[in-house]
Amino acid sequence: MDDINFAVLGTGGIGRRTLEVSTHKDGLTPVAACDRHGVAVNHDGLDVAELLDATEGNIAGDGTGDTDSETRANDDRVTDGGTAVKQHGDGAGIVASTQGTPTETPIDDIIDESEDIDAVLLALPNLEHDFIPRIAERFADAEFEGVLIDVLKRSRVIGMLDEREATLTDAGITFVCGAGATPGLLTGAAALAAQSFVEVEEVEIWWGVGLKSGYEDNRGTVREDIAHLDGYDIETAREMDESEIEAVIEAHDGVLEFDDMEHADDVLLERAGICDGDDVTVGGVLDIRQDEKPTTTTVRVTGRTFDGERGTNTFQLDDATSMAANVNGPALGYLKAAVRRNRAGDYGVFGPAELMPGF
Amino acid sequence: MDDINFAVLGTGGIGRRTLEVSTHKDGLTPVAACDRHGVAVNHDGLDVAELLDATEGNIAGDGTGDTDSETRANDDRVTDGGTAVKQHGDGAGIVASTQGTPTETPIDDIIDESEDIDAVLLALPNLEHDFIPRIAERFADAEFEGVLIDVLKRSRVIGMLDEREATLTDAGITFVCGAGATPGLLTGAAALAAQSFVEVEEVEIWWGVGLKSGYEDNRGTVREDIAHLDGYDIETAREMDESEIEAVIEAHDGVLEFDDMEHADDVLLERAGICDGDDVTVGGVLDIRQDEKPTTTTVRVTGRTFDGERGTNTFQLDDATSMAANVNGPALGYLKAAVRRNRAGDYGVFGPAELMPGF
Repeated sequence: MDDINFAVLGTGGIGRRTLEVSTHKDGLTPVAACDRHGVAVNHDGLDVAELLDATEGNIAGDGTGDTDSETRANDDRVTDGGTAVKQHGDGAGIVASTQGTPTETPIDDIIDESEDIDAVLLALPNLEHDFIPRIAERFADAEFEGVLIDVLKRSRVIGMLDEREATLTDAGITFVCGAGATPGLLTGAAALAAQSFVEVEEVEIWWGVGLKSGYEDNRGTVREDIAHLDGYDIETAREMDESEIEAVIEAHDGVLEFDDMEHADDVLLERAGICDGDDVTVGGVLDIRQDEKPTTTTVRVTGRTFDGERGTNTFQLDDATSMAANVNGPALGYLKAAVRRNRAGDYGVFGPAELMPGF
Repeated sequence: MDDINFAVLGTGGIGRRTLEVSTHKDGLTPVAACDRHGVAVNHDGLDVAELLDATEGNIAGDGTGDTDSETRANDDRVTDGGTAVKQHGDGAGIVASTQGTPTETPIDDIIDESEDIDAVLLALPNLEHDFIPRIAERFADAEFEGVLIDVLKRSRVIGMLDEREATLTDAGITFVCGAGATPGLLTGAAALAAQSFVEVEEVEIWWGVGLKSGYEDNRGTVREDIAHLDGYDIETAREMDESEIEAVIEAHDGVLEFDDMEHADDVLLERAGICDGDDVTVGGVLDIRQDEKPTTTTVRVTGRTFDGERGTNTFQLDDATSMAANVNGPALGYLKAAVRRNRAGDYGVFGPAELMPGF
């Protein structure tokens, strides 16, 4: 009765690793997955090992992780996400799996099955701001009752989801946005660390990611990060081809440092009433040439206590925990919490901090 | 519509400081409070400043913080919680406030008002194991629909609440147990820190408390802690008079160190599915002669990631945050989260870790 069936849209690094993490979890059954050209559905549970094996280094897409073929029908860039493509069957991606079926309409195919699905993880980079909000709308139009959850990073997407909140609520959807590492795990940690205080003055989120072995799987994520660098924005990053991305990485010797990023943690902490968005800073260092983290991921929350003291509570992730571990564990954790809310009839749009103790 | 009216049973250190912290919070209105001899009710909101001023250093009780006069009618020990009793009105405790009314049945008086109360904080030491479970039962018998929340420390009480879960659920009660600092804030931190891992091997909770200026207010808490020392248990601690307590403190030069305590964190993390209770250790240092913390409060969660690494995530509270800040902020934070669940119709017995992302 507490079991949860879920689907994953997108089988880039985040989607595939989430499927893998779910096999370690009790009560979580992955029943559907799709990428740009294929869909796999089995309501008794996908064979995750076979699916991962078939799609490893073999992603159907254009390197952006974009799964929505309908919205990108005129886009001919298909690089298969890397040079070392491992072909296990005909075509790339999910269709290479024995469980996969080719399709022109992968998201609609999942929506068609959604009556028997409790939760859907949208593991898609949001290169167009309204890409994920529009997908949410399609689930609502189909009267999906359940959880939608994404691992978005961008502040401005939250507002677009809020604009659709009535539609989502009417359908019976509990939408959790920004439920990966940051925002996600670290936003939740900030919300919890704030509990010692009656006023939060500053939240500093600082992350380190070493991504050598995961680079091929996470090109979409790296592209999103490049949009945060000085001189780039979301549009220029989207238009870059792979060689331009490589050139940026080369110019930085493989180590990209980010300060004061537009990261949804600010909006998500503000909407939970914890602090002003302006009091939140997010930065970090991404090293694409080694797996070792270039800096320790740390959340520091500074505030005033009711008894007049000022202090800083700290949350630190061990350097041995990979980005994948810190995105996919929390995504499934928030998914579980959201399904509980959804089953109780609590619908709408939530950030991770709103699934924590209130402030 | 999101506003929450709440009551506090017990006006020892925890009860009074919770009332104080609530005045810093949006949407939280304290409408009732009681101690052993008095009750104050105002559904438009208590005047917290007046109530605190009247009861400061002036607690109605026997130094155990016990509020339930009915269950202790034959107990004549009344020490008023200290030597420096400040008398603002007739009698001690709430009756000294202009808002207070004397009563022989303080808890029943709150229950009589509970139709207009969303949540009740049970700020009572649980010197008899089933003291708080029995109070919960009385609220259920009166068909209270709302949240009950306690800041209990003892593992074995959780089972007694579980035995009553059907009764609580039928009434429409969402009971959150162990929602202070530890268990509570630190249990939640452990649950969140676990999200990087697919298997948790060890949770170490280590706390530091400096309590010089708060000692008079927290005699009940100190007595509970003494029960954890070698050679003492809950029964012997309850039977000790004030001079015996002082003698124990003196013998330890004011600094009590605790290892491997029976603390409900173990049960609460196990019931949330995060680890075995046996993998949780709780210890700490209590310094009654200075306010400075004798050691830094730290949660360390060690586990294995899905990708085969082993690491330790860490949560640390600033030494400047007092025990009071770390108990009362989280208690109200969990209370808010529980009211949201209760309003959605999600009833039963929950630990703090179950109000976090799932594992």
